[in-house]
Amino acid sequence: MFESAEIGHAIDKDTFAAEEAPLREALLEAQYELRQQGRFAVIILINGIEGAGKGETVKLLNEWMDPRLIQVSTFDRQTDEELARPPAWRYWRQLPAKGRIGIFFGNWYSQMLQGRVHGRLKDASLDQAIGGALGLEQMLCDEGTLIFKFWFHLSKQQMKARLKALQDDPLHSWRISPLDWQQSKTYDKFVRVGERVLRRTSRDYAPWYVVEGVDEYYRSLTVGRILLDGLQASLKAKTPRVPHPHAAPLTSSLDDRNLLDSLDMRQALSKADYREQLAVEQARLSGLLRDKRMRRHALVTVFEGNDAAGKGGAIRRVAAALDPRQYRIVPVAAPTEEERAQPYLWRFWRHIPGRGMFTIFDRSWYGRVLVERVEGFCSPADWLRAYGEINDFEEQLSEAGVVLVKFWLAIDQETQLQRFKEREQIPFKRFKITEDDWRNREKWPLYRDAIGDMVDRTSTEIAPWTLVEANDKPFARVKVLRTINAALEAAFAKD
Amino acid sequence: MFESAEIGHAIDKDTFAAEEAPLREALLEAQYELRQQGRFAVIILINGIEGAGKGETVKLLNEWMDPRLIQVSTFDRQTDEELARPPAWRYWRQLPAKGRIGIFFGNWYSQMLQGRVHGRLKDASLDQAIGGALGLEQMLCDEGTLIFKFWFHLSKQQMKARLKALQDDPLHSWRISPLDWQQSKTYDKFVRVGERVLRRTSRDYAPWYVVEGVDEYYRSLTVGRILLDGLQASLKAKTPRVPHPHAAPLTSSLDDRNLLDSLDMRQALSKADYREQLAVEQARLSGLLRDKRMRRHALVTVFEGNDAAGKGGAIRRVAAALDPRQYRIVPVAAPTEEERAQPYLWRFWRHIPGRGMFTIFDRSWYGRVLVERVEGFCSPADWLRAYGEINDFEEQLSEAGVVLVKFWLAIDQETQLQRFKEREQIPFKRFKITEDDWRNREKWPLYRDAIGDMVDRTSTEIAPWTLVEANDKPFARVKVLRTINAALEAAFAKD
Repeated sequence: MFESAEIGHAIDKDTFAAEEAPLREALLEAQYELRQQGRFAVIILINGIEGAGKGETVKLLNEWMDPRLIQVSTFDRQTDEELARPPAWRYWRQLPAKGRIGIFFGNWYSQMLQGRVHGRLKDASLDQAIGGALGLEQMLCDEGTLIFKFWFHLSKQQMKARLKALQDDPLHSWRISPLDWQQSKTYDKFVRVGERVLRRTSRDYAPWYVVEGVDEYYRSLTVGRILLDGLQASLKAKTPRVPHPHAAPLTSSLDDRNLLDSLDMRQALSKADYREQLAVEQARLSGLLRDKRMRRHALVTVFEGNDAAGKGGAIRRVAAALDPRQYRIVPVAAPTEEERAQPYLWRFWRHIPGRGMFTIFDRSWYGRVLVERVEGFCSPADWLRAYGEINDFEEQLSEAGVVLVKFWLAIDQETQLQRFKEREQIPFKRFKITEDDWRNREKWPLYRDAIGDMVDRTSTEIAPWTLVEANDKPFARVKVLRTINAALEAAFAKD
Repeated sequence: MFESAEIGHAIDKDTFAAEEAPLREALLEAQYELRQQGRFAVIILINGIEGAGKGETVKLLNEWMDPRLIQVSTFDRQTDEELARPPAWRYWRQLPAKGRIGIFFGNWYSQMLQGRVHGRLKDASLDQAIGGALGLEQMLCDEGTLIFKFWFHLSKQQMKARLKALQDDPLHSWRISPLDWQQSKTYDKFVRVGERVLRRTSRDYAPWYVVEGVDEYYRSLTVGRILLDGLQASLKAKTPRVPHPHAAPLTSSLDDRNLLDSLDMRQALSKADYREQLAVEQARLSGLLRDKRMRRHALVTVFEGNDAAGKGGAIRRVAAALDPRQYRIVPVAAPTEEERAQPYLWRFWRHIPGRGMFTIFDRSWYGRVLVERVEGFCSPADWLRAYGEINDFEEQLSEAGVVLVKFWLAIDQETQLQRFKEREQIPFKRFKITEDDWRNREKWPLYRDAIGDMVDRTSTEIAPWTLVEANDKPFARVKVLRTINAALEAAFAKD
């Protein structure tokens, strides 16, 4: 979920300097228009990792815009007056009036995150708190409020470096956080709980925006652009639309860097290494599936990837290790008539394996946010809500003991072209290449965005995506097997 | 919440006979149109009190309509296959296809209700289950499914009589319920948990319909009408609207009986009794508010009622018992400019008392579902969502230790007329009567509906409504004081 915010997004100083002035002017203008119209209030929630630039961003927004129309509220320790009343009272008394902007720095999410990380709350109570937050935000949106939720992120290393820098800076060292961020464990817990909270509270009317915090210029411009786009869209709507039309809140990165770029596509295996490692991993998988601990679990693997990335070959190497009675391969193509008469996920639910069993999905429920999105086979509303539905679905699988392993087999455009040409020339491979494949190829950039969004929004602790560098088929096949084995072993170890 | 379903709704045999045939025909026609269009599926959830006619209704629907297009699913014990998979799998596999009707008899609600009543689930886990149910229903509605949720209700006495009758009937005595309904405690718990579940899961896209189950004719016609109205509305929408436009799911009773009719308006107190009882109750209230256990609580009372019902007089009798530093009276009129710039409930949140304090609201947040609804000061969407927001608000108060006592002071039309005329004649009372009062009087039937809906949807265990028979002012004043005292004592006893 935070993968795309750990790849070192950055913008150079000149670009920033060139973009800052017009952005600033436009924000100021939007702010006055907001007051002029007096139709709705704006709430900006600031959350995320310590040291990721939360405070700096709040400061900057106050510099960029007119601070008289902005009200920054920090919610640290409850006052006596607040303690004597229901917990939500402190938020109600700080709500910005219509026409104004309220920045909530430390808010209902900070409370629940800290409570869970400190162990004061259990998961069930966290979910109750989440339900309360959703209720409050839903009500605010029904009342016309425009809500932005920002999560400022850093990788663990980035955070450590940043904390060290802050410590050495006398201007910052006085700041005390209620959590001890120096501890690795705190970071891990915070990110894990944060992921659960974001997964369950990202709604079309109040989505989360994850922003990588390491580069100041990137972070500032990203926040400024998101605010400006959202404000302008709501201000120019002639009839007041409720809830506000948030643009698809996907991580379109300003520096045009994508998760897929961070893969090292040159990785390869020699023939000898391949033979040896393949045999080892196949034997390991075979053993794991026969392990008696498998009776408490089921295994589901999802294979997605570029056309000609080698999904079929990888699946065959997995299957080759196993007794055919134990696994089932479900190829996913266009839905049947029966399937079309049901909700989208129905066709996948029907193939969910019972305990002890293994189902391999050759393409999957991710079709909705890949091909259906890119080709326009469903409406934006449909694929936008699919992320949440899929996370919920996968969480249900995971809670029932299903081990879920998801692969994106990635090749570069050159490799794809080469393989397409091969397929056209080799008679028994010719059925594998169609007009569609060539058409899809032209939509490479659209797929690239869709893949990035998919990974950002559905790679979760319980069901992470594994990106497989698949230019070299042997390398890809071994990585696939090894990943499945590691996932099973991790699940068994937790029992 | 169930008050209106305990007043003995009934329809005579002749009326039923006259209405059944056309209803049946229309339902059948709607069912074929549903199949013809094949645009959406229909799910009917059957829940409620044992013996309230759940089974009979399912049977009847199958008689009235074409059973080939209806699929009844009971979800009792999980099968081996189901136990090996995530809990929701059993529901997914029984989903009706588009064009068909699925009746879920025993469903996700039955599971969570039984789990909580048996004590297997705590409140936090119940709320998690509720979150899961909401997610599932939201997804189904997004996919176009039309969902009806019926709660069949009986009062405790009605249930006991009914169970006795069923026991003596050889055709029914074999039926086993997982709960032991013979126990009063089971009924109480079930109703309490049921109320929590209904309060949190009634949504505009899938509202609950509470149906009194004691009279077969009333029950059957009510269900049939609700289904028919909902089906027809969705079928005739030319562009498929998602979610379906449920009619305001309010208890418009077929037999034109209303909760207010069940009050005995002749109750009165003699002058001597009044003096004595008033003094006793005022002293009691004074003592309770000075009790040290009050430090853990706050007290909020809400006064609503017909014009000239005597709210002011009752409030004065309450205040007279107290030290003015301890209470505050908040008269609620049209919102100020500052209040209009905030979400609706803001103006009430700001007056919530701290611990140890007492706030009297003279009119309240219920204005939205009374005068604003009747006069059209807000949109139907606004007042429809207000019930849920209010329940949520009051739950927050209650969880923070606030004791909440809500009064509806009811007088009959004759008494009101008499008092209006008095007011016009007595010089110092003349300011109390305006043109508005006469206009409101003409809207008596609209208010009657609004009051019924308000009580049905917001009288909860944590914040019940007390209907006060207020034709006789002394009686009303003493009842008000006595109710406040009893509520405080009950809260103290629970500490």
